[in-house]
Amino acid sequence: MKLLEDRILKEGTFLPGGIVRVDSFLNHQMDPALLWELGKEFAGSFAHDGVTKILTVEASGIAIAVMAGLHLDVPVVFAKKAAASNLGSDDIYTAKVHSFTKNTDCMLNVSSKYISPDDRVLIIDDFLAMGEAVSGLRAIINQAGASLAGVGIAIEKDFQPGGKKLREEGIKLVSLAVVSLDENGDIAFKAYQ
Amino acid sequence: MKLLEDRILKEGTFLPGGIVRVDSFLNHQMDPALLWELGKEFAGSFAHDGVTKILTVEASGIAIAVMAGLHLDVPVVFAKKAAASNLGSDDIYTAKVHSFTKNTDCMLNVSSKYISPDDRVLIIDDFLAMGEAVSGLRAIINQAGASLAGVGIAIEKDFQPGGKKLREEGIKLVSLAVVSLDENGDIAFKAYQ
Repeated sequence: MKLLEDRILKEGTFLPGGIVRVDSFLNHQMDPALLWELGKEFAGSFAHDGVTKILTVEASGIAIAVMAGLHLDVPVVFAKKAAASNLGSDDIYTAKVHSFTKNTDCMLNVSSKYISPDDRVLIIDDFLAMGEAVSGLRAIINQAGASLAGVGIAIEKDFQPGGKKLREEGIKLVSLAVVSLDENGDIAFKAYQ
Repeated sequence: MKLLEDRILKEGTFLPGGIVRVDSFLNHQMDPALLWELGKEFAGSFAHDGVTKILTVEASGIAIAVMAGLHLDVPVVFAKKAAASNLGSDDIYTAKVHSFTKNTDCMLNVSSKYISPDDRVLIIDDFLAMGEAVSGLRAIINQAGASLAGVGIAIEKDFQPGGKKLREEGIKLVSLAVVSLDENGDIAFKAYQ
């Protein structure tokens, strides 16, 4: 999506180790008009996938997910993060995820009230790198007996394996900007079908 | 705002100790169409207050704030929560806040890049009870040398002192639903000017 790619080039900062910072418009300061457009793009991409619910993770997935939910006219659920020692219970679906950036584990928690076996769930998140958050959300969808409609990501890092794994599994993955590094270590954007 | 009051009556649950749970449409599962209307209402209320930026707190303030930002056409910044031991630095504004629900302290952190002395800041949050989060956000606005345009809250609890303190200070406070308890301990809604 050119609008997002242009914004990443204009305002993003790129740090050693493949870190892409988009604090000025996506995950600390947020540009609501841009988020509106991202939501609309996701809604177009998943318009024929029977989505009944969107699932994301707090905090930086929320704004994008709610804009997608607005355009698709479906409810949005965000998984709450808790310390990894918290145990699940009958009425909470949980999954442990590892954060490679912070080198910590945490639990994702979703109340069983808000995902049912009838749901076709679209996962939305701001970044896809190692794919840990998406794996955790998929585990929660499985616990609920629901089905996965697809995965929508604002910024995928092509030099980390999360996206590749999902495509190999045949999961519908829509990444609005795929950041890769060229042979000089400079930023380039890649297009997947 | 009748739309929100009706939804609270229909889906909210009320627990001893004045706890109001609105997990099904506001702060775990979210109804994007409702959030759109809340954002529009805030935008109307603060249309003539010179708002240049919205400030909220992760996680459950984000969706409401971004809808208000969409209608007011201003950027939205969310304060990140961190353990209370984290120290601030030159480029981060911080404020310590106490959570009465969880009985813990945490730090709110905002990058100094995203609030400037020229900003007129509107604080948006989902709940107002003791007023701790709003106090922390006001401290951050003061550190930035910015000015406060007002405070917009989805659900104020009238039986806790946060709202009263702000009104006594002469701060413009707009609460879309003010929940009070009548003499039988039942829920009633109150209207402030």
